Amino acid sequence: MASVTKTVYTNIRWTLPAVCFVWQTAMIILFGVFVRYNGESDAHWAEFKMARNITSDIDNDFYFRYPSFQDVHVMIFVGFGFLMTFLKRYSFGGVGFNFLVAAFGLQWALLMQGWFHSLDYTDGMIKIGIENLINADFCVAGCLIAYGAVLGKVSPVQLMVMTLFGITLFAVEEYIISDLLHARDAGGSMVIHIFGGYYGLAISWVLYRPNLKESSQLQGSVYHSDVFAMIGTLFLWMFWPSFNSATCDHGDGQHRAAINTYLSLAATVLTTFAISSLSQKHGKLDMVHIQNSTLAGGVAVGTAAEFMLMPYGSLIVGFCCGLLSTLGYLYITPFMEKKLKIQDTCGIHNLHAMPGVIGGIVGAITAAAATESVYGKEGLVNTFDFTNEFKNRTPAVQGGYQAAAMCVAVCFGIGGGTLVGLILRMPIWGDVTDDNCFNDEFYWEVPDEEEIVVPVLEYNNHMTPNKHTDM
Amino acid sequence: MASVTKTVYTNIRWTLPAVCFVWQTAMIILFGVFVRYNGESDAHWAEFKMARNITSDIDNDFYFRYPSFQDVHVMIFVGFGFLMTFLKRYSFGGVGFNFLVAAFGLQWALLMQGWFHSLDYTDGMIKIGIENLINADFCVAGCLIAYGAVLGKVSPVQLMVMTLFGITLFAVEEYIISDLLHARDAGGSMVIHIFGGYYGLAISWVLYRPNLKESSQLQGSVYHSDVFAMIGTLFLWMFWPSFNSATCDHGDGQHRAAINTYLSLAATVLTTFAISSLSQKHGKLDMVHIQNSTLAGGVAVGTAAEFMLMPYGSLIVGFCCGLLSTLGYLYITPFMEKKLKIQDTCGIHNLHAMPGVIGGIVGAITAAAATESVYGKEGLVNTFDFTNEFKNRTPAVQGGYQAAAMCVAVCFGIGGGTLVGLILRMPIWGDVTDDNCFNDEFYWEVPDEEEIVVPVLEYNNHMTPNKHTDM
Amino acid sequence: MASVTKTVYTNIRWTLPAVCFVWQTAMIILFGVFVRYNGESDAHWAEFKMARNITSDIDNDFYFRYPSFQDVHVMIFVGFGFLMTFLKRYSFGGVGFNFLVAAFGLQWALLMQGWFHSLDYTDGMIKIGIENLINADFCVAGCLIAYGAVLGKVSPVQLMVMTLFGITLFAVEEYIISDLLHARDAGGSMVIHIFGGYYGLAISWVLYRPNLKESSQLQGSVYHSDVFAMIGTLFLWMFWPSFNSATCDHGDGQHRAAINTYLSLAATVLTTFAISSLSQKHGKLDMVHIQNSTLAGGVAVGTAAEFMLMPYGSLIVGFCCGLLSTLGYLYITPFMEKKLKIQDTCGIHNLHAMPGVIGGIVGAITAAAATESVYGKEGLVNTFDFTNEFKNRTPAVQGGYQAAAMCVAVCFGIGGGTLVGLILRMPIWGDVTDDNCFNDEFYWEVPDEEEIVVPVLEYNNHMTPNKHTDM
Repeated sequence: MASVTKTVYTNIRWTLPAVCFVWQTAMIILFGVFVRYNGESDAHWAEFKMARNITSDIDNDFYFRYPSFQDVHVMIFVGFGFLMTFLKRYSFGGVGFNFLVAAFGLQWALLMQGWFHSLDYTDGMIKIGIENLINADFCVAGCLIAYGAVLGKVSPVQLMVMTLFGITLFAVEEYIISDLLHARDAGGSMVIHIFGGYYGLAISWVLYRPNLKESSQLQGSVYHSDVFAMIGTLFLWMFWPSFNSATCDHGDGQHRAAINTYLSLAATVLTTFAISSLSQKHGKLDMVHIQNSTLAGGVAVGTAAEFMLMPYGSLIVGFCCGLLSTLGYLYITPFMEKKLKIQDTCGIHNLHAMPGVIGGIVGAITAAAATESVYGKEGLVNTFDFTNEFKNRTPAVQGGYQAAAMCVAVCFGIGGGTLVGLILRMPIWGDVTDDNCFNDEFYWEVPDEEEIVVPVLEYNNHMTPNKHTDM
Repeated sequence: MASVTKTVYTNIRWTLPAVCFVWQTAMIILFGVFVRYNGESDAHWAEFKMARNITSDIDNDFYFRYPSFQDVHVMIFVGFGFLMTFLKRYSFGGVGFNFLVAAFGLQWALLMQGWFHSLDYTDGMIKIGIENLINADFCVAGCLIAYGAVLGKVSPVQLMVMTLFGITLFAVEEYIISDLLHARDAGGSMVIHIFGGYYGLAISWVLYRPNLKESSQLQGSVYHSDVFAMIGTLFLWMFWPSFNSATCDHGDGQHRAAINTYLSLAATVLTTFAISSLSQKHGKLDMVHIQNSTLAGGVAVGTAAEFMLMPYGSLIVGFCCGLLSTLGYLYITPFMEKKLKIQDTCGIHNLHAMPGVIGGIVGAITAAAATESVYGKEGLVNTFDFTNEFKNRTPAVQGGYQAAAMCVAVCFGIGGGTLVGLILRMPIWGDVTDDNCFNDEFYWEVPDEEEIVVPVLEYNNHMTPNKHTDM
Repeated sequence: MASVTKTVYTNIRWTLPAVCFVWQTAMIILFGVFVRYNGESDAHWAEFKMARNITSDIDNDFYFRYPSFQDVHVMIFVGFGFLMTFLKRYSFGGVGFNFLVAAFGLQWALLMQGWFHSLDYTDGMIKIGIENLINADFCVAGCLIAYGAVLGKVSPVQLMVMTLFGITLFAVEEYIISDLLHARDAGGSMVIHIFGGYYGLAISWVLYRPNLKESSQLQGSVYHSDVFAMIGTLFLWMFWPSFNSATCDHGDGQHRAAINTYLSLAATVLTTFAISSLSQKHGKLDMVHIQNSTLAGGVAVGTAAEFMLMPYGSLIVGFCCGLLSTLGYLYITPFMEKKLKIQDTCGIHNLHAMPGVIGGIVGAITAAAATESVYGKEGLVNTFDFTNEFKNRTPAVQGGYQAAAMCVAVCFGIGGGTLVGLILRMPIWGDVTDDNCFNDEFYWEVPDEEEIVVPVLEYNNHMTPNKHTDM
């Protein structure tokens, strides 16, 4: 084992800095060549405003979207990061590597998505504003979902590679879904969650670790690590309405998406608690379910968030997802691990992939069922963006395209994940052996825990003579 | 004891899932029958906008209130949730059951408050928008305050029952106070804090546990649980300006409420630290005071937040509340426990009930003292909503109604709490015996803590041979 | 030692409450004499609106700045507070004293900054609104930075004194820089970070503790205290775009500042991880670097945040700062401690002082290089506020004033810190001896940690007979 671990360390010491420096330098060069401010963030705003008859600065897109952007930002870094601190000895890796790959991913996403969506053909430049930042965070979310499947089993260099390819695949998939198929996906049930979920599961399948049970004494939580994970859960849960509404249409679109998501998530909590209690001996609740399945309703309402899903529709979606997601943790995850050889550390199948599919189906059905009486003439056009070359598309046809989009997301996830998994199997990335997983010791300077006892003992014997001295 | 605990487990395993499933199903049905989007969240917004001569989407109420809503949402789930993690072995129950009852409560609150305030008489439907979500969160806050009094002593099923009745009582009380009496209560000193405080205290009084001291070894904190609780404290403290301003009038109303709350809370911190230090031997500070009493200023400035309280007025309110609340923890809580047989786990009397009463009094006085010279003619009408049938009401009369509103809140709290307490005494709810309180073991799968030692020892002896091998 | 510790306790018990009560009372009196609401938070808003032809309430400055304000507020209390919980036995002091001094500091800052910037000469009153609250939080940030240098080594009374003088010096320095020199400093690289950094370092230098190594067993982290500190790091990192944009011009100014900061911080993360890994044996990452140096890019982009720094420019700034800041932790901090006798607990030199200087230089250069072709005619005037007496200033001249402003900030920091340090050396403030630093025991009632073992053992032997009883 000594030689193996030695190799691991050596690899990381050179590969991680090399990857960080080279890729960050590449980002600077690419940004220098391609990225500029858009009309609303450029100092020429005064002229832009005048040209478009905008009377008040408050009509800058910044004020429509910035509060939601900050909430999404919290979900990416604190939400995903702390959700992954639940392991007793991998909290540094959970929150720390999440930080690293998200910080890289958002830069690469600004470029990739920019080329597809924000290219100014007059000068060949990508013009960015607040909506680009939100979309970059969304794109990163897809990769962080995938991280959940391989948490504790891959090196930070592998994560960087996963992110590089993940962002690239995401941008292409998103272009096909939103531009070519013209499918609507406000909260990214398909684009983000289906893709991210299957991408991670496919990678985990290719990187199957047959002797992972030798790390089993570290593959669990301790009391306080479960409380830390609840920080992640709650910030994801609370800010999910912002996530699903962040890039919706101004006005009723954002408003309705927030309401639908708020309701769906509330219903999910109740059915998650119900199934969790029902399934355990003596009715005890399992923190794994509470930390994860309570979020499934936010995923599943993503595609249809902006639609006239109706408040009760949102509750129904949330009800089903809490139920199915918790059952997933109870039955599907063990099945996948034993029979399909897919080891899914955080259970992303139950939190992202499966609810994402439900969300895609709900989106397709509700789109197909949309009528002018429910949406209003202008509302229907605005909500589904039936303009320009899509102005003759009917809701029924839209439903078909929504279903097609779901298939694209699944294919990109599984196909891309399998390919990237093969790349990650190369023995150059510095990952640990099966018996050393879920252990921060290999990538972090971990403080010596024993000392915590020292001061306590010392207080009692030596440092508090004052207890005998009155004032 | 064995048979008792067995019964507990059995009960919960069936009652908790049953309550969750049945109530959530009822919510779906009631939402299906009664709840729709309002004019600003419906897809007909384009027509709504035109009908009202609204020129920009930014005038949708969403943009006035959504940032505050998200802050309030954080207070409900992270603020209250983490504030209740301070017990050494009840952190799961603190943050987890808070999550459950809040998720149920907000649905029921949307219905109850909707029937009273958002009913569209043209079609008999409740029309919801962002302000309804904020008010639902407010309503939930009342019940979470009550939870603080019984933390660690009741089962999750009892909490659900407490919440069901609490929300119902709240909605009626709120209707009487805000509609019939036309009292102003922007931050809910009366509607939320007085009601929630006395509701919880009355329940705790009825559920008195004579042998609670047998659980005393668990009724305290450990070092890190106190740090977790500070997360709750700080998010409550920081976002309280949003809480008090969230439903105020657009423009100066929200602006002024935020300023008043910010100032009041700042002053509270200083007097809390002062009294805490002064009261303890050697001047040591007590985390219980810092975690709780620092928030009292936000409660007490609630009713008058929107009024022209003046910056120094806010500071005076905060000054007094930090002082009184900390003294409450030192003298009133022990007195209530010994003499009045009210066991108040979190000290909600000092944090909510008493500061709420102060807030109600401050509100009544400042309302009665309002003059046209201070508010301006239009400002006076807007601030106190002296319109329609109330257009002839004078500030002095308003002050009287404010005082009456306070009495209504106290009565609803004590009366409602006593009744609900009696319901909760029925031996069917799965609560633990007096010697098993404050213990997550009875409702949660708690990870085995001993293993945390294993990896540390292993590192030193076995897993780090690399320390002897140079690169 | 007994007598020393006894003295300490006695001191604090009277001095801390005295300082809190007297200063808070002074604040109330001064606010009563000097502070009122401004036109946008006063109940006369309806008339104010009419007088200025404002058509919608949404044009109240509250809606432009409140979301950013709340983010800044979180940075001050949770960001700085939790960043300082990393010490194994000083988490209470880290987050608790941060809370105390910030709550005092913001009141004093409202007054001091108000006299310089918000005085209404018609009635001699300070008129406050949302922008004043943001600036007060900024002012407090300077003092909290300084706290980082002396964390664990000073008493709460000393911190209060540091804050009183720090806020005063800050307000004067800010007046010179922003009004007299008319330098631009949106995110306060100079005004906040250079000043706060050198202020703290100078105080720490004067308060040099020769035998601090006797407290060395407490001057480190434990596993979970490092995770707590990551809460602080991430909230600072995520909300820094709000910090740098909070007081920028409406519209493109705020928009651009947020984008620049977002990008700079992302680049910083990658170079921080790179250097951290490169520097340690076996490439292991050091939590100290990840917690601190990842933030340096936000500091360094502060002055130029509103300028047309260009996306790639922001990335370059972040790239350099992550690199230099991490090298600072590796080489400069040990050098300063050994050679310059400056003990810097949190490494504020690497996180604030040095990146602040970089930020000042970047600001001077980019200001000097500004052209009308890049900014547009009106954009140039707006961004640099070339109006009134400054309407003839050219970018080149502005660059010179920016450089002068940086010198002012350094001088105020070092000069002020040295003077305040001398005041703090008086033996009346209740600070502990060199061998008792970094220990919450001296100022806080710390819960007895040993009990955590009791319940665990008890569960296995006694409290879970139910394991033998099936349902």
